[in-house]
Amino acid sequence: MKPTVDWEAIYSVKGVELGTAAAGVKYEGRDDLVLIRVSEGATVAGVFTQNAFAAAPVHICREHLKQSSIRYLLINSGNANACTGQQGHDDAIALCQKLASIGGVDYQSVLPFSTGVIGELLPVDKMVRAIPLALNDLEEAHWEKAAKAIMTTDTVPKVASQRVEWQGQTITITGMSKGAGMIRPNMATMLGYIATDAKIDQQVLEKISKTAANQSFNRITIDGDTSTNDSCMLIASGESDAEPLLESSGEFYELLSSTIISVYQTLAQAIVYDGEGATKFVTVSVNNGKDSQESLDVAYAVAHSPLVKTAMFASDPNWGRIVCAIGYSNVQGLDASRVSVWIDDVVIVENGGRAASYTEEAGQAVFNQDEFTIRIDLNRGSASETLWTSDLSHDYVKINAEYRT
Amino acid sequence: MKPTVDWEAIYSVKGVELGTAAAGVKYEGRDDLVLIRVSEGATVAGVFTQNAFAAAPVHICREHLKQSSIRYLLINSGNANACTGQQGHDDAIALCQKLASIGGVDYQSVLPFSTGVIGELLPVDKMVRAIPLALNDLEEAHWEKAAKAIMTTDTVPKVASQRVEWQGQTITITGMSKGAGMIRPNMATMLGYIATDAKIDQQVLEKISKTAANQSFNRITIDGDTSTNDSCMLIASGESDAEPLLESSGEFYELLSSTIISVYQTLAQAIVYDGEGATKFVTVSVNNGKDSQESLDVAYAVAHSPLVKTAMFASDPNWGRIVCAIGYSNVQGLDASRVSVWIDDVVIVENGGRAASYTEEAGQAVFNQDEFTIRIDLNRGSASETLWTSDLSHDYVKINAEYRT
Repeated sequence: MKPTVDWEAIYSVKGVELGTAAAGVKYEGRDDLVLIRVSEGATVAGVFTQNAFAAAPVHICREHLKQSSIRYLLINSGNANACTGQQGHDDAIALCQKLASIGGVDYQSVLPFSTGVIGELLPVDKMVRAIPLALNDLEEAHWEKAAKAIMTTDTVPKVASQRVEWQGQTITITGMSKGAGMIRPNMATMLGYIATDAKIDQQVLEKISKTAANQSFNRITIDGDTSTNDSCMLIASGESDAEPLLESSGEFYELLSSTIISVYQTLAQAIVYDGEGATKFVTVSVNNGKDSQESLDVAYAVAHSPLVKTAMFASDPNWGRIVCAIGYSNVQGLDASRVSVWIDDVVIVENGGRAASYTEEAGQAVFNQDEFTIRIDLNRGSASETLWTSDLSHDYVKINAEYRT
Repeated sequence: MKPTVDWEAIYSVKGVELGTAAAGVKYEGRDDLVLIRVSEGATVAGVFTQNAFAAAPVHICREHLKQSSIRYLLINSGNANACTGQQGHDDAIALCQKLASIGGVDYQSVLPFSTGVIGELLPVDKMVRAIPLALNDLEEAHWEKAAKAIMTTDTVPKVASQRVEWQGQTITITGMSKGAGMIRPNMATMLGYIATDAKIDQQVLEKISKTAANQSFNRITIDGDTSTNDSCMLIASGESDAEPLLESSGEFYELLSSTIISVYQTLAQAIVYDGEGATKFVTVSVNNGKDSQESLDVAYAVAHSPLVKTAMFASDPNWGRIVCAIGYSNVQGLDASRVSVWIDDVVIVENGGRAASYTEEAGQAVFNQDEFTIRIDLNRGSASETLWTSDLSHDYVKINAEYRT
């Protein structure tokens, strides 16, 4: 079921180099440290977890983005540096300073990221020793190596790439993500790094970063758990020959932002496909809500319901569970008698009740597939929202119950 | 793990008779229809599901409670009469009318309840034929029979009983519930019927009914799914010799309401113990929140987290998952550095980080138990809330994935 990456179609991004090294943070015999160096004058924007227990590196990233232009991103897997108090903060700063001193930049132009076990201190010495190795490894072509080095419980590296033409110039967008469905808080972090060689004004970049994250990483859910370290960065190196993007409207903006969003969505969906124990990839689409929030609330209620998710796993078109989840999604004044539900093109519920045309056979045929869409029409407005989710399988419980054993 | 009912200590309630019959709604060879007859002058109050797809009988109950004094409750298992449109409504009314005509009362003095499959019409004829049998069976001593007849996926009948003395008079409170954890929307309904022979003013009864439901059935969660049929009724027959309870304050009120709440809690906790696949009974207690809502939000985030629940199942004191769930519970301005977490008497998290005194061995000893408490101190107010929940096991997925096969 998992889509495979076409490595031939993963393009380097001029002005964005990646290097990896094996620091031995937790794993043996594999790279676990990644450096990204961006050219001077690049713009960088990001979105971060809203978790109140946000890890030390998340706090530092927010500070550094405010105070400095960014030249390096330093990522480790194997340890989240979360719930580590002042020492955790000092450790992350020390790593930024070490890299900055070798690279000849201010330490505030380094962004640190960590993913892995919660509540343990970083092995700073090991990481300091690995930094020169990663620096030595920097190359624009190293997306695959880097994507592998940031993996924790992922079973496949996640990379996506697209090119667009604008006024005869080619712009490249390439990104990587990690996360196996936010389903393992000890190892759960969703990280995303998306880079383009376009030159993009800082404010415009921030808008694209937020919009793209909202339409991708913020629209996937495996089990509803949000980690302490989730971060998603958008880098614009400015090294392409295309004109700079200075405004958040117009044809160039639409072209570039929609292509960036598309890369984000591919990377986000790759996380759902790689969700622990996932056997289904299900799109939940809610249409004609009064506003986006209520459409989202209904979509999340359906996508998070363990009952709907086990029915997906069982390939059982148990539509009562979908209706029940819609009903408890807390939409004020929802008139059940106006709600309709489809699975792919099969209408199950019409005007709040079982559709006259619905047959168990038709429903079964849809649920037998590895991928399908649950489409809900609330019939009370014009706001639509879409989520991507997976099922709840035996393996989900097995993996998460036995994670630390 | 499941507590057993001491049938010797289940007392009849004067003025409340129960009768059962086998209507063959869905099950073969067992009773599936229950009648409760309450004496004239009894007061009845209830709380119902907030699900927008509330089933036909729920709508009818709300109407009849407004319009009439209640003499009969008519309950069937095997079919929820939910998502059945106008026909479902007409069917439930027809059953009320049939019972009313035999019993010589107005049909609005009958409350109908259904639990079972969603989206199928009631077999009205079969049920009509069974009503006289159930009427013929009415006896005050039939709590056990009735508790068995309302079961769907429950593995044990759930009954609780208490007696209190007030000014030399004995007051009895006995109740039954069904539900295996709100985890099977096709069969998921939580139903509760609690009766006392006390004489209680209608408004006071309504207040006790709401308070008791909030502190019991509204504080248990298996998987967060709320069914279309949840109902919980409180009946006061007024047949005891104790003085009537006319005010919602004072010593008599405190004594009687706290005893009623205790019966509600026993019945609610019995549902958690009987939760599908449940191997653990866990109390989640959140203290010193700014208000009840945020304490509840944190408790639900922890109790609903599939990651926390699989860790419970695995007896794995994976405290990072608890902290992570607290962090994403969306409490505005939560200061992580002031949060502490205990499991039973073992402090895990202090000031937002791992407690210095915490050892994996101490945590393991607590998680090895069948029952334990997760206690969270938010340290920002004085509001406390407590929930009861179960773990997420292999069997949960197995049962819910294979439910209809």
